[in-house]
Amino acid sequence: MTIEAGPSIRVRLDLSYDGTDFSGWASQPGRRTVQGVLETALATVLRTGPITLTVAGRTDAGVHATGQVAHFEVAPEVWAEQGEKLVRRLAGVLAPDVRVRAATVVPATFDARFAALWRSYEYLIDDGDGGPQPLSRNYVLGWRRHLDTGAMATAAIGLSGLHDFAAFCKRRDGASTIRTVLDFTVERTGDLIACRIRADAFCHSMVRSLVGALIAVGERRRPVEWPVELLERRVRADEVPVAAPHGLRLVAVGYPADDELAARAAQTRAVRTLPVIERPGGESGDAEA
Amino acid sequence: MTIEAGPSIRVRLDLSYDGTDFSGWASQPGRRTVQGVLETALATVLRTGPITLTVAGRTDAGVHATGQVAHFEVAPEVWAEQGEKLVRRLAGVLAPDVRVRAATVVPATFDARFAALWRSYEYLIDDGDGGPQPLSRNYVLGWRRHLDTGAMATAAIGLSGLHDFAAFCKRRDGASTIRTVLDFTVERTGDLIACRIRADAFCHSMVRSLVGALIAVGERRRPVEWPVELLERRVRADEVPVAAPHGLRLVAVGYPADDELAARAAQTRAVRTLPVIERPGGESGDAEA
Repeated sequence: MTIEAGPSIRVRLDLSYDGTDFSGWASQPGRRTVQGVLETALATVLRTGPITLTVAGRTDAGVHATGQVAHFEVAPEVWAEQGEKLVRRLAGVLAPDVRVRAATVVPATFDARFAALWRSYEYLIDDGDGGPQPLSRNYVLGWRRHLDTGAMATAAIGLSGLHDFAAFCKRRDGASTIRTVLDFTVERTGDLIACRIRADAFCHSMVRSLVGALIAVGERRRPVEWPVELLERRVRADEVPVAAPHGLRLVAVGYPADDELAARAAQTRAVRTLPVIERPGGESGDAEA
Repeated sequence: MTIEAGPSIRVRLDLSYDGTDFSGWASQPGRRTVQGVLETALATVLRTGPITLTVAGRTDAGVHATGQVAHFEVAPEVWAEQGEKLVRRLAGVLAPDVRVRAATVVPATFDARFAALWRSYEYLIDDGDGGPQPLSRNYVLGWRRHLDTGAMATAAIGLSGLHDFAAFCKRRDGASTIRTVLDFTVERTGDLIACRIRADAFCHSMVRSLVGALIAVGERRRPVEWPVELLERRVRADEVPVAAPHGLRLVAVGYPADDELAARAAQTRAVRTLPVIERPGGESGDAEA
């Protein structure tokens, strides 16, 4: 038995990664994952036992992040010795495709997953004849046909609000597919199209399915009303294409003020643990892409 | 002998590339160069004989471009058949690290190199503890020590104007090192530092040497006045470090209005062909980085 020296310290990490060479966030045996790489680097740099990370958005294989948030617990004496140099030391240990920008001590009520108010994703598409620009080619979906972004933007507005997004989600038993989309916009700058979506949480493959539906609308293969009509479905709509992962990035996660963290986490957890009844916000931020 | 069908057509290409896997712009036997790859692709797509490209900025190995300009000549009957589809067809033939955005017929007086009024480059540095962000890591120089961007900006202002930049140039016999720097700014956004420089033309390694000097100032290893004092030198200053190529990109090239193209090209050429006397603007745009 080890003797613990007082309560542990909770640390928030703000981090970014290029998802290209990762099998997503979540640890999997024998695969290179962001969680696996980071937990190993943290244990190395902090010279401590295994570290377990809790994350805001469990991104899929190939999906990027510029504003991911995670937290972990560490013994106070370890933090006192290593905390100040953590960001710099991680930079020396981690491969260049994952970077920790900041490591901050947070209240014990901060929970990267359950205390989050919203997650914000961006999906980039280039529909120019020349294809995606070289310096961003790994982070932009090239589309060979011109897309009607006006139609896409109209469809996106229709998808905003509190809905059951079952048609756009990979079904998991007992998990709610009801989510609140706070904003969903489509903006064109030359050949570059940015689809930006912010929601309380996302179910698995939701953003990529929504973007896949918008692309069908942009190509005029489907009417503008089609994505909204799919909200009537209670199961995954197989005719909705899932857009490729490399165009997607998690850009930001929002949290309440410190004195509201505990209430938010309790609220999210309570909804999540209801055994049968499904409610808005269930399975908050557990999966995406 | 082949029979030519009338005067050839001159075509301007607007293009971008990721310089990482290229041995620079200029063709070299046995090396992958942007010029080599593009000339081969053009000959393939246009189904014609060899194509020769003239370029605005001959970037070095590892230097990127988002706003490069080149021109070539092609027979009118070839252009009539292939011109409209050129950008789309090139996109299918070229590797994703080089893209042609536009192919435009221009007056015979347009010369990508000699008619250019200015070239604009950007050099990006990240001096944060965490290192360059993953999605831009191949295009940003990571610097492990904090840089005083105020001092760098002041030094940059001093370097603006008409000067002999011999101290910052790889010497070539008979080539002028007198250039006019139109703007030179240093701007910080968080940990990201952008050094932006626009000049009538650049001599070889000039931008990277100027940035190398600014970094020495930013680190306080050299006084703010040091880069300006180096302008007194008539030969390359060996103590000036040359910043790594991957932080540098050619972002834009400026040209006069169509009716002033011929005059500008004649002026640049006249200066260049003076056998002994060196004048401002000589060797215009022949080399850089």
